[in-house]
Amino acid sequence: MIEQKHLDYLTSIVGQENIKKDKAHLIAFSYDATRERFEPDAVVFPRHEQDISDILKYCNEHGIVIVPRGAGSGFTGGALPSNGGIILSLERHMNKLLEIDMENMVGVVQPGLINMEFQKAVEAVGLFYPPDPASEEYSTLGGNVSENAGGMRAAKYGITKDYVVALRAVLPNGDIIVAGKKTIKDVAGYNTAGILIASEGTLAVITEITLKLIPKPKFKQTYMGIFPNVNKAMNAVFKSLAAGANPVAMEFLDALVIKALKQKFPQVELPDDAGGVLVGDVDGSSQAEIDSQIQTLKESFANYGSIGFIEARDEDHGKQLWFARRNASPATMIYGTKKLNEDISVPRSKLPEALDGIYAIGEKYGFQVPCFGHACDGNIHVNVMVKDKTNEKEMHDGHKAIEDIFQFVVDMGGTLSGEHGIGLSKAPFMNIAFTDAEINLFKQIKKAFDPNNILNPFKMGL
Amino acid sequence: MIEQKHLDYLTSIVGQENIKKDKAHLIAFSYDATRERFEPDAVVFPRHEQDISDILKYCNEHGIVIVPRGAGSGFTGGALPSNGGIILSLERHMNKLLEIDMENMVGVVQPGLINMEFQKAVEAVGLFYPPDPASEEYSTLGGNVSENAGGMRAAKYGITKDYVVALRAVLPNGDIIVAGKKTIKDVAGYNTAGILIASEGTLAVITEITLKLIPKPKFKQTYMGIFPNVNKAMNAVFKSLAAGANPVAMEFLDALVIKALKQKFPQVELPDDAGGVLVGDVDGSSQAEIDSQIQTLKESFANYGSIGFIEARDEDHGKQLWFARRNASPATMIYGTKKLNEDISVPRSKLPEALDGIYAIGEKYGFQVPCFGHACDGNIHVNVMVKDKTNEKEMHDGHKAIEDIFQFVVDMGGTLSGEHGIGLSKAPFMNIAFTDAEINLFKQIKKAFDPNNILNPFKMGL
Repeated sequence: MIEQKHLDYLTSIVGQENIKKDKAHLIAFSYDATRERFEPDAVVFPRHEQDISDILKYCNEHGIVIVPRGAGSGFTGGALPSNGGIILSLERHMNKLLEIDMENMVGVVQPGLINMEFQKAVEAVGLFYPPDPASEEYSTLGGNVSENAGGMRAAKYGITKDYVVALRAVLPNGDIIVAGKKTIKDVAGYNTAGILIASEGTLAVITEITLKLIPKPKFKQTYMGIFPNVNKAMNAVFKSLAAGANPVAMEFLDALVIKALKQKFPQVELPDDAGGVLVGDVDGSSQAEIDSQIQTLKESFANYGSIGFIEARDEDHGKQLWFARRNASPATMIYGTKKLNEDISVPRSKLPEALDGIYAIGEKYGFQVPCFGHACDGNIHVNVMVKDKTNEKEMHDGHKAIEDIFQFVVDMGGTLSGEHGIGLSKAPFMNIAFTDAEINLFKQIKKAFDPNNILNPFKMGL
Repeated sequence: MIEQKHLDYLTSIVGQENIKKDKAHLIAFSYDATRERFEPDAVVFPRHEQDISDILKYCNEHGIVIVPRGAGSGFTGGALPSNGGIILSLERHMNKLLEIDMENMVGVVQPGLINMEFQKAVEAVGLFYPPDPASEEYSTLGGNVSENAGGMRAAKYGITKDYVVALRAVLPNGDIIVAGKKTIKDVAGYNTAGILIASEGTLAVITEITLKLIPKPKFKQTYMGIFPNVNKAMNAVFKSLAAGANPVAMEFLDALVIKALKQKFPQVELPDDAGGVLVGDVDGSSQAEIDSQIQTLKESFANYGSIGFIEARDEDHGKQLWFARRNASPATMIYGTKKLNEDISVPRSKLPEALDGIYAIGEKYGFQVPCFGHACDGNIHVNVMVKDKTNEKEMHDGHKAIEDIFQFVVDMGGTLSGEHGIGLSKAPFMNIAFTDAEINLFKQIKKAFDPNNILNPFKMGL
């Protein structure tokens, strides 16, 4: 518990109305998408960068833990106050779109701005911000940067880190730093922005983000490739890319997901013989470019075993084709009462082998493991379905299966997480993915920024 | 001077043939493109990663300075042994192309591989590695990563950091680390690769680089826009991009450079009334895409004051148009006996204002300052031309002019270096670009990796 005198001091910084200690607030800020719960000692809503600097300086001097938080939509507990302390919520005041600079094609935002609000604002002036995590409707850009969020459009356009041009941030000691500039190139000094991206709020509190924008593509079309099984579909992924396909998105559904979708959503558009599906969009600056992209996909899918190819007739039909992918996650709940889902990623040429291995691990423990995800990036959403979550043995086996999957994936050159980060949930598995030397280096980096370990401590197993 | 027993130990690691102390070697490894000279105590050629690990571990324990070196083509002294010590040369043994992975579209190389050799190898199999620093014929990929090299094609394709997928490296204590994987997405652990890029060999020795490749564009055409003056040309840069132009390269030449080119190379293709020029390439997957890109450029250049537009008739004509840009640097030598050249970068919308200011500073000190560079990136190669390099006062004024230019550029949101890095040459100017808090953070990062300060010490002013 934090002493009253400390809370009084924090109140003197932000004002009575921007610090909350009532039960309702403590509960509201105790959880994220993991559904784990840890109550903070207080929730503070800084009004601006100077507040954050003052708060961190004080907390650093008095050893008070600070956990920065955007929308709390993370899947690995990165924003949870697992050891108590102060939640520093960026969503109330620090949520502004500061500038859309058309001439330099960058947007400048505060960390609490919601991804989709930013997308809409830039599209209104003919520009485009590609990173579109599934949480885009509610996750914040500060959270996106801290977790290096991906999304569907990563296939063509990359992930959050590919769009961060510059950051402002407050270090745990209260120092305000600028990392990067609006210039496209900047090689003066260490690439501090590079290390803050994906650092899960453990190194500094980001206070301003400059994001690269690109011209909005004028044309878009949705496609769906139908395969007899997911192995053939996965094989077609890297082969179609090697043949010159450059889709905005290429998402996959396996046989179990397809079966679940048909059962739960009878209106879904999926042919009867579909045992594996690739669905996505192509885009471009002309209809000719679209046609050529669609042709490349159709031909190379056919060359690698597809049994059907659907081109969306119009935008509405496109949405209909996307329905299957958008509802893949809820559909899988026909297989159990609890889903242990992870977002591992492998080199995309290894997708067929990865899925074979994942299914085999599921079988060993007696689980159905429906999989879907971002095929171009080799990013698989693995769902180990627990039939009875009150059955301790089954839950234990489920976690064993996940651990086996992590080990299997890392052994084939993959990673514990393509999008969600480590946070608390994957912290126990860090030693599967990293050597002692690597973890020691992470600890030294953490110490360089946060010697008193006050900022989001113990996350990432650090 | 390093004690003989230490040299003996290093010899026992790499073998007699891979350590040199003779004068010829010490001189050969004493300089880089800055033409400054510092002799090392010895030059070591490690055979493989394990050698590097053994060498660093020993040197770390005994406080022996190590300076990693690729081709020594840097412009800021990053590879110079300014405080003596051992040159660790990666060019003799660690120069192999290890793999071109077509399925995952990545290349795996050792740090000593020359950029152009890699480009040729990947293009032979239909792939493309865009970063093309002017030194591409001789600079190494390890050097490119350590300096975050740019190049002409950065306008469309970005810079080295946009292509680094994973690194292997040896820390000063000898620990071998892997940062990143062949997966497109990886958000497990800190983005160590992000901070190693552009760290100028001060944090770790890179031993293996995995680089993203893209399909080679099938079509390409060279264009040249002619403007009455450079201000109009600079204004057309960001306006044509906002209008949808997406050139591979957009290079500029100012009036002084044009005049020098005509005088020194009478065969150069530059219209008489040219006071500012934009030259570059567009590329794409179809002739239609090329035509549309050329049309966009032509129209928007005309809208913003161009007085001529040349489309290359064929590849040879394209090369002819590029001749002017390729020879800009030697041509400027008509203005003096010594060129003080810097590679500052500004947000591209500020290019007109930046050039006006730079010329004004030149005038104040009595210098002609011909400028050319990478317009889309706001990256200006500024050349303060000293008429008589033996005149101390003039040289002193030249350096004062450079300092004024740095201050002016930073004040308008620009950077000390778009491509060349800080090294030794720009170290005295770090406090123009960075606050004490930022420099202190750099020092903490340096210490996290290299607590005994044995790896390329004092570079970047650290």
